[in-house]
Amino acid sequence: MQSLFKVVIQNYPSQLLDRAVAQMSTLPGVGRKSALRHVLYLLKQPAEDVRAFADAMTGLREGVVYCKECHNISDTEICSICSGTRRDRRVVCVVENVQDVMQIENTGQYNGLYHVLGGIISPIDGVGPRDIEIDSLVSRVSRGGIDEIILALPTTMEGDTTNFYIYRQLMRLEHADLRVTQIARGVAIGGDLEYIDELTLGRSIINRTEFTA
Amino acid sequence: MQSLFKVVIQNYPSQLLDRAVAQMSTLPGVGRKSALRHVLYLLKQPAEDVRAFADAMTGLREGVVYCKECHNISDTEICSICSGTRRDRRVVCVVENVQDVMQIENTGQYNGLYHVLGGIISPIDGVGPRDIEIDSLVSRVSRGGIDEIILALPTTMEGDTTNFYIYRQLMRLEHADLRVTQIARGVAIGGDLEYIDELTLGRSIINRTEFTA
Repeated sequence: MQSLFKVVIQNYPSQLLDRAVAQMSTLPGVGRKSALRHVLYLLKQPAEDVRAFADAMTGLREGVVYCKECHNISDTEICSICSGTRRDRRVVCVVENVQDVMQIENTGQYNGLYHVLGGIISPIDGVGPRDIEIDSLVSRVSRGGIDEIILALPTTMEGDTTNFYIYRQLMRLEHADLRVTQIARGVAIGGDLEYIDELTLGRSIINRTEFTA
Repeated sequence: MQSLFKVVIQNYPSQLLDRAVAQMSTLPGVGRKSALRHVLYLLKQPAEDVRAFADAMTGLREGVVYCKECHNISDTEICSICSGTRRDRRVVCVVENVQDVMQIENTGQYNGLYHVLGGIISPIDGVGPRDIEIDSLVSRVSRGGIDEIILALPTTMEGDTTNFYIYRQLMRLEHADLRVTQIARGVAIGGDLEYIDELTLGRSIINRTEFTA
């Protein structure tokens, strides 16, 4: 089907090109047109550069290690955060994935450890509590030395479910001093009240904090 | 430097990840954040899928062939368009690159052959007439059998320069019957006059065509 206003590139002059574009367009958010642009860009580069590109992808996939403690991506058995000597080992922040760790690290506001779940509970996607790193979190806490668990999961139904499940599992440990907290939700800094959703705005009023001048 | 409103992910927990993201972000229009998303997506795929992805890129770069006749990407020495038996071999459309061939092919309105220059004359970028496939075009025309050259280069100063250079070279051949044409420029179909630039609108009035009901 061809429309007058949008022509979709589909006649590739080469099987090799077709295959490369098909592979490139498997990447999230990359359509056939961007994929073609990317592939033709690679085609113009020296062969050794394209090989370096390809090797970086397979090298990562085949060489990647996950930290035995927090399940973050790592080059070593225990990641640089978990083995860091200046980290506060009594606080563990629970996040969905590796990006979240990087995002929080980049704030420069957190000095504790992490626990990467590798997903959140989602019955629709067939992800149950056993499919993500909840048991390892509970056993980590049960070994002692942790005073606070900060829940930093998304504010979705799945995130809330996962939060609740983790909370219940942790309460079973009868670890009297354990604090379970969650990150503050509210109006973003620089965010305009006019464009904020009512749920967030409502929550930001309920959870208001003392003004300090 | 960290800004309050935009946090750039820069602390990669793994050298392998860092390298993969660096490579991914060399693609045109892919920033560090998209690159990270692409790479983490690949990381979640089976190892053989990532290998297939990588192989498709190196396979294209190392196995690609350019048609000896028109310089389009091809799997064979002479591409499927140049070797097509139902093509009008008397008309050759001159384009800047491989995408342009695909775009024109997708219109379904053209049945002639192509000539891919592989660039346009651009003194700023150090691209001269000898760096692109102009000589091969001239020698192709001089061998005879071509009645019309359609110039379909971009309407930029570089495109105009290249058009003019090609025109002058072809005129030297003293090929009496050769027509040199260029694709129609005007208001796009579905385009609103209100938002069109004055140059295009002016040109579309000068180059008006007979109305056929």
